[in-house]
Amino acid sequence: MTFRIEHTDKGTKARAGEVTTAHGKIQTPIFMPVGTRGTVKAVHQHELKDDIQAQIILGNTYHLYLRPGIEVIEKAGGLHKFINWDLPLLTDSGGFQVFSLGSDKRKEAGLPGIMKPKITEEGVKFQSETDGSTHFFSPENAIDIQRTIGADIIMAFDECTPYPCEYDYAKRSMDMTHRWLQRCITQFNKTKGKYGYEQTLFPIVQGSVYKDLRIQSAEFIASQNCEGNAIGGLSVGEAQEDMFSMTEVVCSILPKEKPRYLMGVGKPEQLLECISLGIDMFDCVMPTRNARNGMLFTRNGTIAIRNEKWKDDFSPIDPDGTSYVDKAYSKAYLRHLNFADEMLASMIASIHNLAFYTWLMREARKKIIEGSFIDWKEKMVKQVSTRL
Amino acid sequence: MTFRIEHTDKGTKARAGEVTTAHGKIQTPIFMPVGTRGTVKAVHQHELKDDIQAQIILGNTYHLYLRPGIEVIEKAGGLHKFINWDLPLLTDSGGFQVFSLGSDKRKEAGLPGIMKPKITEEGVKFQSETDGSTHFFSPENAIDIQRTIGADIIMAFDECTPYPCEYDYAKRSMDMTHRWLQRCITQFNKTKGKYGYEQTLFPIVQGSVYKDLRIQSAEFIASQNCEGNAIGGLSVGEAQEDMFSMTEVVCSILPKEKPRYLMGVGKPEQLLECISLGIDMFDCVMPTRNARNGMLFTRNGTIAIRNEKWKDDFSPIDPDGTSYVDKAYSKAYLRHLNFADEMLASMIASIHNLAFYTWLMREARKKIIEGSFIDWKEKMVKQVSTRL
Repeated sequence: MTFRIEHTDKGTKARAGEVTTAHGKIQTPIFMPVGTRGTVKAVHQHELKDDIQAQIILGNTYHLYLRPGIEVIEKAGGLHKFINWDLPLLTDSGGFQVFSLGSDKRKEAGLPGIMKPKITEEGVKFQSETDGSTHFFSPENAIDIQRTIGADIIMAFDECTPYPCEYDYAKRSMDMTHRWLQRCITQFNKTKGKYGYEQTLFPIVQGSVYKDLRIQSAEFIASQNCEGNAIGGLSVGEAQEDMFSMTEVVCSILPKEKPRYLMGVGKPEQLLECISLGIDMFDCVMPTRNARNGMLFTRNGTIAIRNEKWKDDFSPIDPDGTSYVDKAYSKAYLRHLNFADEMLASMIASIHNLAFYTWLMREARKKIIEGSFIDWKEKMVKQVSTRL
Repeated sequence: MTFRIEHTDKGTKARAGEVTTAHGKIQTPIFMPVGTRGTVKAVHQHELKDDIQAQIILGNTYHLYLRPGIEVIEKAGGLHKFINWDLPLLTDSGGFQVFSLGSDKRKEAGLPGIMKPKITEEGVKFQSETDGSTHFFSPENAIDIQRTIGADIIMAFDECTPYPCEYDYAKRSMDMTHRWLQRCITQFNKTKGKYGYEQTLFPIVQGSVYKDLRIQSAEFIASQNCEGNAIGGLSVGEAQEDMFSMTEVVCSILPKEKPRYLMGVGKPEQLLECISLGIDMFDCVMPTRNARNGMLFTRNGTIAIRNEKWKDDFSPIDPDGTSYVDKAYSKAYLRHLNFADEMLASMIASIHNLAFYTWLMREARKKIIEGSFIDWKEKMVKQVSTRL
C-alpha cells in the first residue's frame, strides 16, 4: 500500500491524497460504507460501485467469523470473491463488536442473555449471539482470520473502551492494546503472503478522552511505522468537543505522510470538521442505519421522511443529489414506502445517504485541491446540520 | 385497449398475442409482477423494466386505498406518476384482499382481531388491519377508486369465494358477482374520462370448482363484451386438476379474440399448462414471496437456498438465468445472506425469480410462434418442477 498526498490545505490540516492498494486506488478524504456481513445493507454491489461511487467498503470480522464462517470465505478465495467486490476492502479486527456483546440491549429486547466478554492479557472470550457457542479472539487469531478474509487493509486487535471510562481503566486498557499491537505485528509478519493477498495492517490509537493517554498512545502507534494509522474509541458516547479535541491531539502526532483513519465517525458535519483536523478515512453505519429509519442527509440539511409535511410533496427526493434515486422517486412516495414498511424504502434511502456521503468527500477533496476548503467547510457544516 | 393475436398453436389452445394500452404494448403470454403497495417487494422500478423485462405490473386497490390513501395518489396524478412507472399497470378491485380479512391468521399471529367482512347485496363492510377503522367497498366505489388510481386495466368488483365452498353459496355468490358486474360497468361508463386516463375494465368469471356454474358464469361474462376477461376464484386451495379443468371449461367459452387473464396463478409448470388451455395473462406473488423465503425457480428446477448443499457452492446462482444477478452472485453467497437475514438476499432472489418468470413467458411465446410449443412445454413442465 502506498499513500501520496496531492495537496495540503493552507488554513487547516486537511489533505487531499491517494491510497493505492492491490485492488485499486482510493482518493482521500474517503468515506467507506459499512458492509457488516459481506453486504452494505439494502444495496447491490454494482450500485455501490457505479451509482454511489464507493471506492472501498468495510467488512466486520466478528460477524463474518460467525457467519458464514471463515472456512466458507477461505474456500471462496477471500471476501472479495465471496461477495463479488473487486475494489478495495477493509476489515476491522472483530474487537469492537465483541466488546459490545453481553450488554443490556439484549435483555431489553427480551432475548436470552449471553455472558459479558471476558478480557484477559491473552485475549477475549465471548459467547455468540447467534447460537450461544463460546469463542476466543486474540491478537494472533484476529490477524489469522483477517489474513483469510483477505481485505486490503486490516486492523490491529485492540480494546475499544466504552464511554465513560475511568482514567485507570483507560490507561491499563491502552497499555494492553499496545502490547496486543506488537503481537498483531509479529503475527502479521509471520503470515505474510500465506493466502496470496497483499494486505496492510493499521494500528489503532486508544486512550479514551484523556489527552495524556491519547498523546502516549499516538506516539506509541506512530513509532510502529505502519503504512497507515487509525484512531479508535471515539464516537462511543463522548461529547463532540472531546471527539474533536482528541482527534486534533492525535493527528498532530501521527505521521503526516501516512493516511489517518478515524473509526466509526460520524455525522456529515463531523466528517468535515475532522477532515480539517487531518483525517483521511472514515466509516460509519449512520448513513445506512438512519436511512432505514427514514432519515435522509442532504447538502441542505436532514429530512425526516415520516414527517407529515412530506405526505403530498411529489418533488424529487433530493434535486441536488448525485444518485439516480434522487430524481427517480419523490418524497411522498418514499414516505409511503417507509410507512408501509417496504424494503424499497430502505433501498432508496440507503443509496441516497451513501451517495451523499461519498459526494461530500469528493467535494471536500476538490475544495482542498482548489484551496477553498475552509470557507466551503464553514458554510457546509451549517447547511448539512439544518433540519428541513 | 386492443388485442391482436399473432399466432395460435396447432396442438393446444395457446396463443401469442399483443395487448396495446395507453402506456405501451404487452406481449402475451405475459406474467405480471405484483406490486401490492405500489412497489414490487425488494425490487427497484428500473430493475423491473431493464433487467427483469416486466411489461406490466399490478397494484392492489385495497392496500393503496388504505395507504397512502386515494387522495395522495390523486394529487400525484395517478399511480403511474406516484411510483414512477410509465409502462402498463393493472389494479385489482380490492375485493380479494377484503374477503381474506378477519381470518384466523391474525389471531394465530397474536394480533388484535378485526371483524370479518360483512357482505350484502350493496357491497362489503370491512375493518382496516392498519388502524381498525371501518370502510365500505361497493361495485361503484371500487370503480371510482380504480378510476382515481388510473391503471390501464382495472378489474370488476367480485366476490372471490373461498375453497372449499358449498354449491349453494357458490351459486348465490356468482349471481351476485354478475349483478355487481353490471353495476361496475354502469359506473365505469358513467366515469369515462373523468381523470383523463384511458382505462379498460375486465370482468371476472367465478363459480368455484362447479363446472355448470363456471359455464354459466363464463357465458354471462362473455355476453358483457368487455375488452378482456378474467378468471377468478382459482388457486385458492382447490386441487390442481380442478384448477386446470375449470380453466379449460371457461377458456372454451370466453371469446377467442379477447385476452384471458387467470388471476393469482401460479407455479411455473401451472403457467405453462394454463397457456396451453388458452390463458394469456397471469399474476402471482409466488416468485417474490418464495424469493423472500429462499426458494428459487430455474429452468432446471427449484432451489431451496438454505439447504446445506449450497453452503460452499460458489457457482453462479443460475448460469442459464437472464438477469445480471444470476452471474454476479453465487449460491453460497445468497445462502449466507439469507441466513444473515440481509435484505440483499430478498433483493437478489426476487430479481432472479421474476426474471425467470418473464423469461418463461417470452420463451413460451417464441415457441408458440415457431410452432414448437407443445413439445417444449412437456419438457419444460418436467424440468421446472424438479427439486435441485
